[in-house]
Amino acid sequence: MEFMTRLGILLSGRGSNFLAIADNIASGQLADCEIAVVLSNKADAPGLDAARRRGLKAIAIEANGRKRAEHDEEIIDILRAHHVDLVILAGYMRLLSRGFIQAFPLRILNIHPSLLPAFPGLDAQQQAFNYGVHVAGCTVHFVDEQLDHGVIITQRTVPVLPTDDEPTLAHRILEQEHIAYSEAIAKVISGNYEIQGRRYIPKK
Amino acid sequence: MEFMTRLGILLSGRGSNFLAIADNIASGQLADCEIAVVLSNKADAPGLDAARRRGLKAIAIEANGRKRAEHDEEIIDILRAHHVDLVILAGYMRLLSRGFIQAFPLRILNIHPSLLPAFPGLDAQQQAFNYGVHVAGCTVHFVDEQLDHGVIITQRTVPVLPTDDEPTLAHRILEQEHIAYSEAIAKVISGNYEIQGRRYIPKK
Repeated sequence: MEFMTRLGILLSGRGSNFLAIADNIASGQLADCEIAVVLSNKADAPGLDAARRRGLKAIAIEANGRKRAEHDEEIIDILRAHHVDLVILAGYMRLLSRGFIQAFPLRILNIHPSLLPAFPGLDAQQQAFNYGVHVAGCTVHFVDEQLDHGVIITQRTVPVLPTDDEPTLAHRILEQEHIAYSEAIAKVISGNYEIQGRRYIPKK
Repeated sequence: MEFMTRLGILLSGRGSNFLAIADNIASGQLADCEIAVVLSNKADAPGLDAARRRGLKAIAIEANGRKRAEHDEEIIDILRAHHVDLVILAGYMRLLSRGFIQAFPLRILNIHPSLLPAFPGLDAQQQAFNYGVHVAGCTVHFVDEQLDHGVIITQRTVPVLPTDDEPTLAHRILEQEHIAYSEAIAKVISGNYEIQGRRYIPKK
């Protein structure tokens, strides 16, 4: 039996990127991995219910004013108990503690709806729209200790059309996110790359 | 006789973007405009000689420790004496004074070798390469009073290849600059656009 990379998904909302990943695994388009557990810091995150409906283990760990490090420790314990190899942030609206990041070195991925380093932080699509860029996009990157900053695994571009408003632009970016995240996961689980400085270099 | 937009080119070096624009005008690919004068703050800029060889008026206005506003006034006078409608910065390595920018409102264009707002300032290609972006590019924008900041007229993307080093990336970006600048000039001289906030919107 071949080795399956076990994914741990963290989300705070509906988890549309999680659903796209789950669909790609189900269809075989994203191979050699399985979703071990879906975690949320919000008990009412629709993504948790969606996970349960797909027969996936889904757990809420509410933060409830607890210290970040303590909350993260509990999440780390659950990820380890489920033998998670790769942590996938899919709209997880909470900063990770240094301890969390160090517990999974180069094993935590995030997606951001802009061509980083442009427009980090919240409302990236609105930022891009307001700035008047002609090319927007999304970025999948390893998580490091700075916000929206780690080594970039993949980026996909989206043209900004004269007829766009922010919602139409955000929708077209999201379509590319759904492709980009599975692409990036496949690249990482292949192990067929090296990192030089900040550069992700696929091996021949 | 149709109206010809008169371009004033400002450069400090070899002016490869100026040469691409001159070639596109000569071939008819960039229509309805002509180069009225080429100016440089460096008497030894190779772009000045190249302009003269093409039969264009080329003038050096050395800064020589003069105040920016005073140096800019002389350049503005020459541009006006040559009835320049549109000022094209083509590797002009000097900040413009507020007075210069206000003398040609939305009539000064610059090109920058990155997908702004990412990597403003010097050595943009090296910045992008070092950051590890997977998509680089170039931006043509109106010049405002902040560096590499004005309303964007066009952007073109360039993939960063695993085999790239900074020179190969910079070369492929430059190829796109040579296309982008003439595209942007054609858009501006058409007059067929409006600006909403920071957004350049072509009219139907």
